[in-house]
Amino acid sequence: MEILCTRDDFLTGVNTVQRAVSAKSTLPILQGIKLKAVDNSLWFEATDLELSIRCCLAVTVHGEGQVVLPAKLFSEIVRKLPDGDLRIVSDEHNINIYYDHSNFVINGFDPEEYPEIAEIPSPDPIMLPSSLFKNMIKQTIFACAVDESRPVFTGMLLHIDKENISLVATDTHRLAYSTSVIPGNEKEFKGIIPAKAMQEVYRLLDDDEMLTIKYNKSRVVFEFGSVQIMTRLIEGQYPNYKQVIPQSCNTKILVNAKKFLDTVERASLLSRDNYLKTNTVRFSVENSAIIINQYSEMGKISEQIEIEQEGENFSISFNSKYITDVLKVIDTEQVVIEASGPYSPAVFRPVDDDSYLYLALPLRN
Amino acid sequence: MEILCTRDDFLTGVNTVQRAVSAKSTLPILQGIKLKAVDNSLWFEATDLELSIRCCLAVTVHGEGQVVLPAKLFSEIVRKLPDGDLRIVSDEHNINIYYDHSNFVINGFDPEEYPEIAEIPSPDPIMLPSSLFKNMIKQTIFACAVDESRPVFTGMLLHIDKENISLVATDTHRLAYSTSVIPGNEKEFKGIIPAKAMQEVYRLLDDDEMLTIKYNKSRVVFEFGSVQIMTRLIEGQYPNYKQVIPQSCNTKILVNAKKFLDTVERASLLSRDNYLKTNTVRFSVENSAIIINQYSEMGKISEQIEIEQEGENFSISFNSKYITDVLKVIDTEQVVIEASGPYSPAVFRPVDDDSYLYLALPLRN
Repeated sequence: MEILCTRDDFLTGVNTVQRAVSAKSTLPILQGIKLKAVDNSLWFEATDLELSIRCCLAVTVHGEGQVVLPAKLFSEIVRKLPDGDLRIVSDEHNINIYYDHSNFVINGFDPEEYPEIAEIPSPDPIMLPSSLFKNMIKQTIFACAVDESRPVFTGMLLHIDKENISLVATDTHRLAYSTSVIPGNEKEFKGIIPAKAMQEVYRLLDDDEMLTIKYNKSRVVFEFGSVQIMTRLIEGQYPNYKQVIPQSCNTKILVNAKKFLDTVERASLLSRDNYLKTNTVRFSVENSAIIINQYSEMGKISEQIEIEQEGENFSISFNSKYITDVLKVIDTEQVVIEASGPYSPAVFRPVDDDSYLYLALPLRN
Repeated sequence: MEILCTRDDFLTGVNTVQRAVSAKSTLPILQGIKLKAVDNSLWFEATDLELSIRCCLAVTVHGEGQVVLPAKLFSEIVRKLPDGDLRIVSDEHNINIYYDHSNFVINGFDPEEYPEIAEIPSPDPIMLPSSLFKNMIKQTIFACAVDESRPVFTGMLLHIDKENISLVATDTHRLAYSTSVIPGNEKEFKGIIPAKAMQEVYRLLDDDEMLTIKYNKSRVVFEFGSVQIMTRLIEGQYPNYKQVIPQSCNTKILVNAKKFLDTVERASLLSRDNYLKTNTVRFSVENSAIIINQYSEMGKISEQIEIEQEGENFSISFNSKYITDVLKVIDTEQVVIEASGPYSPAVFRPVDDDSYLYLALPLRN
């Protein structure tokens, strides 16, 4: 392998694929990034066997070939190389990087031992605008479970049913649901995608490009620009989330999202539970106001926010993070909250927009 | 105590004094920030008994008084308060913060128990330009010892002798020395100032103000703008650093600081000693070039930098951090290095500038 490229090409490639490198693996070669020169392209590739990321850059190839380099050293040296042109020549499993009058050799792994990332033949992929999908991820991904004891909840249900697309995440204490339309689409897909893969799609997607989704029964590929993100689907049955969404409510309020967010953040400072690592916030909805009166040994907060209210007064407690998370992603100035007393889930929605919904279970105290 | 001020006033005060708050102390009250309203000023004050920081802001005082508030909660709530005007009313040891139609109470400590920060009567202080002092700190502070086994090396020797000012730091493996002139000064001061206090002076000093230094035998105060930083001096004998500075050399070279820095940073990637947490770099000075040829099980680097050389060829090894630290603070494009073989300290200087000097001991390997 012999190629000419720039330091910035290398940096782009490394930054794109690096998060798929296995952090802790019994297979040392999975701590590597694979470089493959073919035609006039340089492919960067990393995988932890669940998630794989590839990207392809146009470079001058004088000799085809492939190497696998330890990701940590490779990314550190790329960051420290001078701006400008590099000549890369492989030598057995190693590469020589020539720059200025200098030369850096990185000892690599045997590329024959690197796992092959299987292509997914998909003659008829689904295409949709990136900006739409990126926004759907942002509005839902935070509701995934971090705890891995029940794998389906560490993923997000992506359901494409002809022109309708929906994305759902839940950790069983709260649920976020976003839906949209792909005009003209006739294909169908349903699968549980690991949050880690979705995080990478979100990080790498540019707003102004098209996203292509290819899939089979066990895997899915997101393609955009020069990037491919491949992941296994999570096996298992996703719960029937529709049946937990309340169809009616006793109280409906309209509140300024920013004001409510700030108030909840202040109140949560007084209620840190160091054992559960959560903060609790309790508020009352009373006569067109949200009222917070919260005490602890550290101090006291009394706040009142004017709201529009329809229906009964009530008081309710939440893990404050369940409220602040959603208030940060709702785009409208006002947010609608529908509730039915202290023991029923509350539903949060943007104003006049049925494409998004968030549901949180209250705390019982 | 009753005052009117803005959220930004509070934020300025908290940010200024917060780093003097005791992180771990057997005295809980030292985790507090003291507020004192007097005349038309609000004083913020924090101390860990070694280092004290005070700052004074002009506010509207309707009632004088003082409180001591837990620093962590106080700074968190100040950051979360809405922009704009606040009314602060004390109630016993607590304060009420009124904003919008809301109210936050922080439970405080008994201000009578807060240690008094002693004033230093100094009718005849030393005055000098901040920018000068700030630059001297930047060029030397990194050479202080982190290890606290020998306290004098965790401080910096400040010596003001009429018009001459010098600042020295050493961890016994390397030494940084900066000197300058205070035109017209007739006073004298010599003391070892803790690096932590100097770090705060550096952080808070604005370039375009005057710095006033007041002192007695055991303490020193740095005053500028609305800020006062007080610290105890470190007791003990500072070593006679002048006698370790070589008066002659066998080789003198002139090298581009940025190029040398980049090369050393790249070479150090290959030589991590995980036990000692250091990286070693070895280079040769040969026939008007610095040559690095370094190997490890990870790879190999070969670099060459053209230099101006007077005197003998030689090879030498350093802890790479000892070189990169100084190359980052020398302002001139070229740096002068004076050396006398592999076992003698090397001296680094800016070109044509005798006001700064850095000395590093080589590694013997």
